[in-house]
Amino acid sequence: MRRGNGLEIPETLEDVCAPESMAVVVYDMQVGVLGQLEDGPAITERVVRVVEAARRGGYPVIFLRHFFLPKRLMGKFALRMAMSWQGAESAEDVVPILQRDTPAFQLVPELQPREGEVVFDKTSMSAFEGTPLASTLRDLGIGAYAIVGVALEIGIAPTVSHSTDLGFVPIVIRDGVGGRDTAGLQRAWDDFAFQGHAIVTDSDTIVPLLEKTS
Amino acid sequence: MRRGNGLEIPETLEDVCAPESMAVVVYDMQVGVLGQLEDGPAITERVVRVVEAARRGGYPVIFLRHFFLPKRLMGKFALRMAMSWQGAESAEDVVPILQRDTPAFQLVPELQPREGEVVFDKTSMSAFEGTPLASTLRDLGIGAYAIVGVALEIGIAPTVSHSTDLGFVPIVIRDGVGGRDTAGLQRAWDDFAFQGHAIVTDSDTIVPLLEKTS
Amino acid sequence: MRRGNGLEIPETLEDVCAPESMAVVVYDMQVGVLGQLEDGPAITERVVRVVEAARRGGYPVIFLRHFFLPKRLMGKFALRMAMSWQGAESAEDVVPILQRDTPAFQLVPELQPREGEVVFDKTSMSAFEGTPLASTLRDLGIGAYAIVGVALEIGIAPTVSHSTDLGFVPIVIRDGVGGRDTAGLQRAWDDFAFQGHAIVTDSDTIVPLLEKTS
Amino acid sequence: MRRGNGLEIPETLEDVCAPESMAVVVYDMQVGVLGQLEDGPAITERVVRVVEAARRGGYPVIFLRHFFLPKRLMGKFALRMAMSWQGAESAEDVVPILQRDTPAFQLVPELQPREGEVVFDKTSMSAFEGTPLASTLRDLGIGAYAIVGVALEIGIAPTVSHSTDLGFVPIVIRDGVGGRDTAGLQRAWDDFAFQGHAIVTDSDTIVPLLEKTS
Repeated sequence: MRRGNGLEIPETLEDVCAPESMAVVVYDMQVGVLGQLEDGPAITERVVRVVEAARRGGYPVIFLRHFFLPKRLMGKFALRMAMSWQGAESAEDVVPILQRDTPAFQLVPELQPREGEVVFDKTSMSAFEGTPLASTLRDLGIGAYAIVGVALEIGIAPTVSHSTDLGFVPIVIRDGVGGRDTAGLQRAWDDFAFQGHAIVTDSDTIVPLLEKTS
Repeated sequence: MRRGNGLEIPETLEDVCAPESMAVVVYDMQVGVLGQLEDGPAITERVVRVVEAARRGGYPVIFLRHFFLPKRLMGKFALRMAMSWQGAESAEDVVPILQRDTPAFQLVPELQPREGEVVFDKTSMSAFEGTPLASTLRDLGIGAYAIVGVALEIGIAPTVSHSTDLGFVPIVIRDGVGGRDTAGLQRAWDDFAFQGHAIVTDSDTIVPLLEKTS
Repeated sequence: MRRGNGLEIPETLEDVCAPESMAVVVYDMQVGVLGQLEDGPAITERVVRVVEAARRGGYPVIFLRHFFLPKRLMGKFALRMAMSWQGAESAEDVVPILQRDTPAFQLVPELQPREGEVVFDKTSMSAFEGTPLASTLRDLGIGAYAIVGVALEIGIAPTVSHSTDLGFVPIVIRDGVGGRDTAGLQRAWDDFAFQGHAIVTDSDTIVPLLEKTS
Repeated sequence: MRRGNGLEIPETLEDVCAPESMAVVVYDMQVGVLGQLEDGPAITERVVRVVEAARRGGYPVIFLRHFFLPKRLMGKFALRMAMSWQGAESAEDVVPILQRDTPAFQLVPELQPREGEVVFDKTSMSAFEGTPLASTLRDLGIGAYAIVGVALEIGIAPTVSHSTDLGFVPIVIRDGVGGRDTAGLQRAWDDFAFQGHAIVTDSDTIVPLLEKTS
């Protein structure tokens, strides 16, 4: 590994892949989100495989879970966004979706947190905005995270972008993330390559690394 | 009301007390927190009175709920704090407390969120750190919040301090907040007076204002 | 304008274009940044036109200015990024660029802040990360910003993305922003259209709106 | 040192006092701030002694510098605070103070940043709010900071409080911080003891530790 200022500077996946320097972040694997994706079950299967490898390897595992505010607490931007996404003509026509503690909000049964794992709820796209994710990882001395879940073009791409402003190296597992908009997905991959901060890998590559206990 | 830069500048409680400019924040009214306070039931009663008045007046009501990370995810600072608070000699002796989704973590039965209200979970003392509280209030055009709950000297005082750095006017309801350390409570009141940002009131004063619908 | 929860919900450019609801943000118009762009002088000219219209209309004008940390303070991520961008083999080979208070760091002479305007310095790509921008705008009751400057594909796109997570409506002035990577620029425009939060306009459209004093 | 989750958990000053785990933060040592303090020169002398020891020891040194927004950009809270602090009857009577790039804003001549050091400007009391301080320290792997400067009861106390919410261990150098309000200063010391997160030391204790190069 390269060094500078007395620090080890990670370059490759192997450089960051250790339970003391990388966490696994499971993004919005919720009933109501996966239900919108044709390949939901296939993604779930691949995410489960990564999470189980991470558990065998002793990695920190953190789940994110999205909810939208109840209608009474939606402000200008939230109402504007909901009207736009739902094609609603007026605020009255907005239908509250993905509300806290409803069935759609729950994590899919295959991906429930175990002892020693945690769920952070959020109302933002970036998993690092309005959550304790950054300070939790930092207190563990962790500056990198492998991310799996949905949807890449809606929530994971802004997470990757925001996290690099905070100094975290994102490891995006290509076949462990899903989405629906083909052009949007392609833009995300192209942007990761252009920005040059993220390490893009796949589950066949990372699973053996995760499982390898030191 | 005074004006500047085209804005109404609030001075008194009456200036901010309206559902479009103030929210009611209920801080950590959890089974496991109130159980540590002798006057828990009395505080609960007074908080309920404020919350019900806020509901009649149509105010946004937001609940905060604290949890500590599972032991596996506690880093240097979290372990240091837990050892200090628990008088533990080693990290192994740290007992996980107030864990997510345990009975102690729940809000007391008298203070469950109704439709249109929300709960934000947090791992910080400041209700504005690692939560969507600031952006939620701002999107509603709200720059002031009345706060009730526990504990003043541990969590509410840092919330008040942090929120003023973000530009929110705190309204602290003297008999609607509780705590355990007499000297710490006094320091909080003295500090609010010294900093000069917070409006300190009591429930007999604010309840009629909250109930008054425009 | 549409309404909801007692709030006016902006839809069009005309809905947000007023000095009490929108600010003008000038992003990284620095000597050392523009020097890298062939069309730097042309962009400067168009940005000046927008800023002068905003001044005539009485809008808040806020400048952002980027700097990189001195080498001694660059950590793992900062060194990794610098090595990657500079094609440096080792941390020793990293050349410090865009350092605070150097000539390259200065705003171009045509775009100096006037009385009543401010400069916020930053080390992040998002103008809202590690700066007082969000709280400054919010205290003014402002939930929208028109943005001009460089570079769209490097810094303005992450700013737009981050700001929507915070509830700000971005107005991107198509010919008032510049960049170098053609594919990256196209991705940014496509992504704004896909996300649906940003209002994209051009200077011929917005300048008359800015100049119109109420 | 105690250990947990594979991490070294600092307890004493000696545990954190190393250039790879602690930075030195110099808070608001500005001409216009020190001019308000009778013992300004004495504080400056003690801060210089600490900073020079930190330089000899190779520690990261970061300066904070406060400014207030120009009057045109002051919103509800900023105007309310200024009116209260200045005893102004109306917003028109508010006098802009400590404006960016004015003589009062400058760091005192004895405490200018050297090569490899940096200044972060801020509009907040907490040095961690609206600045890149947290992410800069974290990228260096640093989770503790020694703080000197002024004023303890106005700005350093909120910094200490906020930083513990972010997981940083504050080391407050008793004779290297100053202030004006005797009661407020005492409250700060009492609160640090009560919260139990901060390590309070003095310059005679820390200077030899800082100077000791490994």
